Amino acid sequence: MNYTQLLREKTQERMSIVCMGMDPVVEKIPFKGDAEKAISIFYAMILEAVKGEDVALNTVKPNYAFYAQYGFPGLRALKKVIELSKKHDMLVILDAKRGDIGSTSAAYAKEAFDFWGADAVTVAPYMGSDSVGPFIEWCDKGKGVYILNRTSNKGALDVQNEMVAGKPVYMKVAERIVAWGKPGTGAVVGATYPKELEEISSFYVKSGKKIPLLIPGVGAQGGSAGDVMKALKASGNDLTIQRINSSSGISFAYLEEKREDYAGAAVKAIQKLNKEIGYLG
Amino acid sequence: MNYTQLLREKTQERMSIVCMGMDPVVEKIPFKGDAEKAISIFYAMILEAVKGEDVALNTVKPNYAFYAQYGFPGLRALKKVIELSKKHDMLVILDAKRGDIGSTSAAYAKEAFDFWGADAVTVAPYMGSDSVGPFIEWCDKGKGVYILNRTSNKGALDVQNEMVAGKPVYMKVAERIVAWGKPGTGAVVGATYPKELEEISSFYVKSGKKIPLLIPGVGAQGGSAGDVMKALKASGNDLTIQRINSSSGISFAYLEEKREDYAGAAVKAIQKLNKEIGYLG
Repeated sequence: MNYTQLLREKTQERMSIVCMGMDPVVEKIPFKGDAEKAISIFYAMILEAVKGEDVALNTVKPNYAFYAQYGFPGLRALKKVIELSKKHDMLVILDAKRGDIGSTSAAYAKEAFDFWGADAVTVAPYMGSDSVGPFIEWCDKGKGVYILNRTSNKGALDVQNEMVAGKPVYMKVAERIVAWGKPGTGAVVGATYPKELEEISSFYVKSGKKIPLLIPGVGAQGGSAGDVMKALKASGNDLTIQRINSSSGISFAYLEEKREDYAGAAVKAIQKLNKEIGYLG
Repeated sequence: MNYTQLLREKTQERMSIVCMGMDPVVEKIPFKGDAEKAISIFYAMILEAVKGEDVALNTVKPNYAFYAQYGFPGLRALKKVIELSKKHDMLVILDAKRGDIGSTSAAYAKEAFDFWGADAVTVAPYMGSDSVGPFIEWCDKGKGVYILNRTSNKGALDVQNEMVAGKPVYMKVAERIVAWGKPGTGAVVGATYPKELEEISSFYVKSGKKIPLLIPGVGAQGGSAGDVMKALKASGNDLTIQRINSSSGISFAYLEEKREDYAGAAVKAIQKLNKEIGYLG
């Protein structure tokens, strides 16, 4: 089974296309301990709470940087969080935005899939085909590769929206993704620019290839799940292979609600996001 | 002292602009042991051999991917190799090609400078100003940031050479680097396309800003130190702040020469590269 099929299967198992970002900030975790312990217990409790039948979640996205900033204790926490997520039957997207020349990208792919044990990884397109190629090869083994396409941040405009022969760079990259991709190759498209999301999504639908989208930027970054769904539906895309990510909006929901029960607050935030996304059928 | 001044000082201390890439492949290391031990002993011996007065080297560049592919033993080796390199008075450029939205890039910068203890790090420009900004802030603390500009691989053509209003993307990125940079902000420009290296180098000289270049691609990738020097000189650039990198061409020189003494072969390869680069004064 390729990664795109796996996404669809997971969506149907537990009707949801929500992805929970797992980006730890120890100052926001409501108990003490070294980074390894604090982070892994924090997410273990959330994963436990998410098991309930009244909450639908099947995909998580730990971002490497938030763990690595704490050194080895953080990296050990990342390993534990991934292992625990897989025990809870979650698809794990390692957000690491890797990319280098071919031989180095091959080593990065080993890191993501062999060492961390992720199901999918995010990669950067700036270095081109031989840079993303070694990741895409892993699609044959059922792994997923999300190539940065149109990111959710303001600075995205600087390079991604430069015009090349009447087309923005992000559309040129979309063309490359269609050309380079194997089943299981997807694209990162931010929720903060719904018009561009619709433009890119329409392009993929017309290409005839199934390109799963990873859509960050909902919640803290200002994107809205409603707008994302409008864009996806307007483009006629297959909703079951998409993932809409919220990170601190779920994990740290308890801080905004001034609740003590952070895992309960996370569950509520997931339920709310599922509701905003609406029925997928 | 900012990183650019540090580069100049190091160049003058031991007349050399060679950078030794440290990209371990355990199969190529001539003794057994787990990855941590094998890698750290391998480079410890090379660093020891490089101490001799007849060999000039002041900068090393470990690439994160080659260590991370071996999991925690590899990552522990990276930590040891960086610590040991600093003990040997080397400038350490961590080649990691990081980059994400602002808050995540801030975590990545902490990883590179706080955790790994690197003097400089390589970053990717695709996500724009707020992605590279948190790295550049560290320039105020004497750290260096090399932004990918025109990379040495074939796939570089795919995105970097797309034409934007009559200019290739890599020149648009060069303009951004000048606009964004603080003293200590540099650019990665491959040795494999000397004409484009000269074009970019001339642009930086004309900008009036000192942009240190990190130039990989010499040796195994096919770039020539002679061509690099011609390009740098033709553009009238300050040679003392540049670094020309060779990785396997130094570390694994012993394999091509069928020598047993790998540290001795590395020393010879460094001496040869210094000679090809020629007198800097």
